[in-house]
Amino acid sequence: MKFKHLIIFTSVLVALIACNSKKTTNSVEAEAVEQTENILPSWNEGQTKTSIMDYVNEVTDKNSPLFIPEADRIATFDNDGNLWAEQPAYFQLYFAIDQVKALAPQHPEWKYTQPFKAVLDNDMNTLMEQGERGLLKLVMATHSNNTTEEFDSIVSKWIRTAKHPTKNVNYDKLIYQPMLELLDYLRVNNFKTYIVSGGGVDFMRAFVSPIYGISSEQIIGSRVKTEYHYNDGNPTIERLPTLDFINDKEGKTLNIQKIIGKKPVFSSGNSDGDLEMMQWTASNQNKNFILYLHHTDSVREWAYDKDSHIGRLDKGLEQAKQKGWTVIDMKKDWKVIFPFEM
Amino acid sequence: MKFKHLIIFTSVLVALIACNSKKTTNSVEAEAVEQTENILPSWNEGQTKTSIMDYVNEVTDKNSPLFIPEADRIATFDNDGNLWAEQPAYFQLYFAIDQVKALAPQHPEWKYTQPFKAVLDNDMNTLMEQGERGLLKLVMATHSNNTTEEFDSIVSKWIRTAKHPTKNVNYDKLIYQPMLELLDYLRVNNFKTYIVSGGGVDFMRAFVSPIYGISSEQIIGSRVKTEYHYNDGNPTIERLPTLDFINDKEGKTLNIQKIIGKKPVFSSGNSDGDLEMMQWTASNQNKNFILYLHHTDSVREWAYDKDSHIGRLDKGLEQAKQKGWTVIDMKKDWKVIFPFEM
Repeated sequence: MKFKHLIIFTSVLVALIACNSKKTTNSVEAEAVEQTENILPSWNEGQTKTSIMDYVNEVTDKNSPLFIPEADRIATFDNDGNLWAEQPAYFQLYFAIDQVKALAPQHPEWKYTQPFKAVLDNDMNTLMEQGERGLLKLVMATHSNNTTEEFDSIVSKWIRTAKHPTKNVNYDKLIYQPMLELLDYLRVNNFKTYIVSGGGVDFMRAFVSPIYGISSEQIIGSRVKTEYHYNDGNPTIERLPTLDFINDKEGKTLNIQKIIGKKPVFSSGNSDGDLEMMQWTASNQNKNFILYLHHTDSVREWAYDKDSHIGRLDKGLEQAKQKGWTVIDMKKDWKVIFPFEM
Repeated sequence: MKFKHLIIFTSVLVALIACNSKKTTNSVEAEAVEQTENILPSWNEGQTKTSIMDYVNEVTDKNSPLFIPEADRIATFDNDGNLWAEQPAYFQLYFAIDQVKALAPQHPEWKYTQPFKAVLDNDMNTLMEQGERGLLKLVMATHSNNTTEEFDSIVSKWIRTAKHPTKNVNYDKLIYQPMLELLDYLRVNNFKTYIVSGGGVDFMRAFVSPIYGISSEQIIGSRVKTEYHYNDGNPTIERLPTLDFINDKEGKTLNIQKIIGKKPVFSSGNSDGDLEMMQWTASNQNKNFILYLHHTDSVREWAYDKDSHIGRLDKGLEQAKQKGWTVIDMKKDWKVIFPFEM
């Protein structure tokens, strides 16, 4: 073999090796990364983190008897108190309160009628005494009588400007860093992540997609009835002041079936309102994972469970113990709570 | 430079070129394929095919002023008469008829009560005279009082065994080959393809996913009310004999907003029941594409439009002309109709 030929031969050989070794190096690197603490970095090492990772490794390994095809890797997450905070009251209620104040000039009668009077007087006690019916009135008055586009722009503006009453940061800063990492980790492993929340679906859609990496078609929530108007070729969908569906408790299960049409394999929530979704997921014949978040950190966040009016966790915690579901102890399991602490 | 060094140097150089040129070759190849008739092969060359391809090229080209980000590439397809045939009656009606016959032994009273008597007597004229209310009775009696899993298995069995009354093939053979190619073509170009049909969502989910390549969470349809039962840890969702939502006309638009939360950029349908969905899509500020299928082939399929009781296309055709929407002339534009003709 002449030197010229040797050069060509070696070149081609090295080229082939280089191209292939590129792939090999990548997979070795990927595996190495997977072994490190780069996965779920805001989670403390321990049983909770290990059980999540063990589950994901087990069901995504093609050689495992528990392997789940990608199309069936449906993961559903509650939002309030699970992906972002919910104390001292649901953030959507603060939106309703702020909207009542903004709309008050057009409704002079609100000065004399409940629950609006309580809102305008900043009297939270009286407001809470109005009960569910009063709150529903508040929500209907502030979430309807506009088009879907108008409502979207009202919420978008609110989330950019309104501040949480005690933490004094924008509400969308009060999302949980460890849960963002969990959502990402599941997606990297080809799970399809859904929000399944009691909150309003169009309220969430106005801002959560870039925060959670979950697009509008993977957000399921409560909603008002709507009406189509042709408007001579400029069609709108009008939001009516009537409830269409409350996406809570068994409603979550029913909506998962209606909208997704598949039983989830992974469900994450923090309250008794998530229990039916958990049970439904736990009945999946595929290996499934049920994750309850227990709010135990009164210093960095809030500590509450069975006696809380917001996000009560009582029966859910009991069933989690009975069934061996995984419970996150926020204080113990999470290194940081909010992204701004990093 | 010594020969040894020259060899190493050349090798590395060739390796780099090889790795890069691999990419270049791939893109050149991809472009070449795109130029050929391999795209939409069952569509005849002509204005309809060209206008579809021009649209897709325009909105997926990053350098085009009309570029649409992938997340917004929502494409919605009607099913009956658009992805599969619908003559001489909706295929789901044949399912209901077959179910009445199967369930008749458990319902001796059906021998004497309409619309069941007409079904058992094979008297289609009397059945049609029962009108919408009669048909609804039929659907409720055959689509409910079972769990979601039971219903799924009943439909699956039916689609594997039942035959079309005149074509004498299984109903799922009567899907349109050119539409399968269009769905694929859009997905290759990172459109998310949805079925948005007046048909029952759980009826469709039982068999259409492998046929159309559309997973259950991208199927939107009419549905019955449902109820969650815990059953001591073996939860079920029961299908009730009450309508929950009719996904037709303005209902399509409302459901698209409720479930997807985004306005489509591409809509395809064949009847006046799709018109509101078309209008909604046409109002998208992104460049959009509206595609009506006109059944013009009385030999290979069926020819019908404004006078048909099934899939009537009257106002839709008028608006298509007015607005310059694309209309498929089935006879002229499609080389083959059904996959089994190939």
